[in-house]
Parts: sequence; structure tokens; C-alpha cells
Amino acid sequence: MTGTLTIAGIGPGDEAMVTPEVSAALAAATDIVGYAPYVARVRRRTGLALHPSDNRTELKRAGEALRLASEGRHVVVVSSGDPGVFAMAAAVCEQIESGPAAWRGLDLEIVPGVTAMLAVAARVGAPLGHDFCALSLSDNLKPWPVIERRLDAAAQAGFVIALYNPISRARPWQLPAALERLRRHLPATTPTVFGRAVGRADENIAVTTLQAADPAGADMATLVIVGSAETRLVPRPGHAPLVYTPRSASA
Amino acid sequence: MTGTLTIAGIGPGDEAMVTPEVSAALAAATDIVGYAPYVARVRRRTGLALHPSDNRTELKRAGEALRLASEGRHVVVVSSGDPGVFAMAAAVCEQIESGPAAWRGLDLEIVPGVTAMLAVAARVGAPLGHDFCALSLSDNLKPWPVIERRLDAAAQAGFVIALYNPISRARPWQLPAALERLRRHLPATTPTVFGRAVGRADENIAVTTLQAADPAGADMATLVIVGSAETRLVPRPGHAPLVYTPRSASA
Repeated sequence: MTGTLTIAGIGPGDEAMVTPEVSAALAAATDIVGYAPYVARVRRRTGLALHPSDNRTELKRAGEALRLASEGRHVVVVSSGDPGVFAMAAAVCEQIESGPAAWRGLDLEIVPGVTAMLAVAARVGAPLGHDFCALSLSDNLKPWPVIERRLDAAAQAGFVIALYNPISRARPWQLPAALERLRRHLPATTPTVFGRAVGRADENIAVTTLQAADPAGADMATLVIVGSAETRLVPRPGHAPLVYTPRSASA
Repeated sequence: MTGTLTIAGIGPGDEAMVTPEVSAALAAATDIVGYAPYVARVRRRTGLALHPSDNRTELKRAGEALRLASEGRHVVVVSSGDPGVFAMAAAVCEQIESGPAAWRGLDLEIVPGVTAMLAVAARVGAPLGHDFCALSLSDNLKPWPVIERRLDAAAQAGFVIALYNPISRARPWQLPAALERLRRHLPATTPTVFGRAVGRADENIAVTTLQAADPAGADMATLVIVGSAETRLVPRPGHAPLVYTPRSASA
């Protein structure tokens, strides 16, 4: 029996944002591997083994999934959002590169999903409507000066910036430091969006400015979007303001 | 009767990548507005009016959608991929800002989708597994020097680069110039991916290097991903090689 490994993006939380391709992969699985809160989103059924794990054990989790697949199981690794954006696909690739040669022969499929920045952007307008970047603020796996350099480069060159993993109990000062850094380059009025748990009961979206942005409003599940100097705020009577970045840019 | 305007992302082409939320919006629409090839992907039914339009008429198309909604219709603007990424959401926001005050009072919903870079990345591994940017190579709405500055900044700072709108009949030299520019900053062996029409019959994915990347392999529907200096290629016997960017980065 030949096993398979699928890495599927289950979106930011709302079942209505899970693609049919991902649902089909879940329906065909014998084993679900992933961070416990994501595994908990998969419907239980007879014959489906669940393998929830803790946060920050990505490589171990990837290895477990590869072992199960090499034993002939049909394994789905579930990732929040899209599996290729600050999620499990890279960890599985790392394990395939460094692991037993047989793992390179496994049938591997990666099924995309709606990543957090797209879901948050959709809630407020089109802040990613022009050139943008996605940057993880976690310095667990890269030195902080690299992050600073990327923040400087992105802001100076006019990219809108989506910040993943902005803050956690173990990383309390990185988001304040990043916002302070960006204030050197961008106007105080630059529209800034904090979004979390899009499509879930505890969804929270806040639109503010770079000057007023308060890191206390973010947690591990928050996605922060800092506009470019071109990003605009459009007030709407009776509706939340629109935040968007025009398709054109000046020199 | 109160109209509504929904801007929905129908993904890169495969029905299995269209979220249930988007399908529900299409099912509830009275009018579909969009670039003709995208409108053609919507199932026809009695009572559904289709309003296909040409490429490069985004503002006019957005205005048409807003007018129909203000007349009480339930309008869905269809965008390929995600509507917020180099697509119709920004054009609609621009029209809302500059148009009649009543347009600001309309019920507007943006429904995210799987944008091309996520679908292409999933086909080859996890090239967007670490910090990355998305950049349109079209200089119709921004000066070429702005694009050059962004290419330089992104490559020097270590972002993986996803290039949207890389080439067209009217813009033949921009992709060659961009690749040449990136070669100044990145190793010749940097993995580079050309992907088009993911999930469609004419899907084509090619993995090459920055040195060997040939613009002739791209057309208007191609999404190009140029790795960072950290992006890796993992050969796999019997399978296409994996391309991924490790989650860690050195200084």
C-alpha cells in the first residue's frame, strides 16, 4: 500500500472559506496531523486518526506526517490559512531534504488556501491592492537585524507590509519595535489594520493609523497590515471606512 | 430595493479551488460583472445577467458594477485569484472614493480567494515559505523606475519575489529587464518558477534557475516566482524537484 502526504490550507477559520479541494483531501484521509486547534476543526469520523500537536514543534510534526505516509497511510497535514505561507509546507520540505531518501519518493501534494492577509484585507477594502510584502516578525528562526533590514527596505521602497506572527507571550517587544521602525519611514497617518480570526465568532478587525497603532490590540492570531504612503482611507457614512492602496503609484 | 456589491475571487481556474463563500455569492447574484474570460467561468442561469468586458477597462467596469448595485441589483464582480491582489477590489475602491456620494453607502462585500502565487507555489513545494513580496511588472500605472527600485530593495533584503503581470504583447521588454536586474543581486542558481493556469487543462509549471529563466516561457497569465538566496531545490527521483524557502534565515 502506497501512502500519500497532503498539506492542506484550511483557511482562517470559516468553513465557507475552505476550498472543495481541501474538503475532498480531508474526506480521503486516514490520518490528520497538525497543531491541535487546527486538527480540532476537522470533522471526526470512524477510521480517521487524529494526531494533534503543540505549537512550535513544526519539524517534529512534519517528521511524524512523513513517517505515517511512508507506512502507507493517507496523511493530511492541516495548516491554518495557506500551507505555503509561514506554515507547514516549508517544514515538510525541510524534513524531506534532510530525512531518509525514501521520503523523496513519497506522493506529496500541497493544496492552497486563503491565507490570513487576504482574508483580513477583504474585510477592510483592498489594502493589498498594489505591491506588498509578507514578513514574519518571529525572530525564533532568523536574527532580529534581518527583520529590521526587511522592514526598512519594504517601507522605503513603497511596499504595503503584512506582518505575520506579530506578537506572542515569548515575543512581546518585536511588534512595538517594528511599528516604531516603520514610523521612521512612513507618514503618521498611514492606515494600519489589525485583523484576527476572520470568519470565526471571535473575529476582530480594527482600522487605525501607524501613529495610533497599539500593539496591545494584537495577539498570536493577529495579522497586521501597515499601508504604504499611497494607501488611502475612505470614510463611509453608516459603514466602516474603506482602506485601499490604489493601483497606480507615483515616482 | 437595496442593491449589493460583492467582489469575489474565483481562484486561478479550477472549480475545486473556489470557496463555498464565493459559490454562494454567485448563486445569489442578479448580475455578474467582469473581464470576459472570468465571467465565462460562471454557470449561466435564468435571471442572471452577464456583463463581460475587455481587459484594461477596470475603472469603467467598476463604475458599471457600482451603478447596477445603486439601482438595486445584486452584483458580483468576479476576479481571477483573489480580488484584493492586483485585481478588481482596488479599482472599485477608487471609484467609490471618486464617484457619487451615494456609492459610499452601498453594501459592499469582498470575498477572498486563492491568488495565483499561492496556487503556483503549492505546485512546486513552498517557495513562499519565508518572507516574500508580490510585485506587478506592469508599468501602465506606475513608472518603471519605481519597479526597478522595488526589485532592488526586495532582492537585496532577501524577500522571495512573486511577479504578477510579467509580460504582455504591449509590454514585451519588462520581464527580461526585471530578470536581468535581479541577476545583479541573486545567485545564478536561484530557483525560479514560471506557473500558469493552475488547475486548468492548459496548466503549465516550469522550474528553472534565475540564470536560465527565459521570458519566452511567460505570457499574460503567467506568475513568476524568483527565490531568495536561501531558496532551495530538492531533487526527487520519479517526481518533480521540490522548491522551497526554509523558515530560518541567516544574518
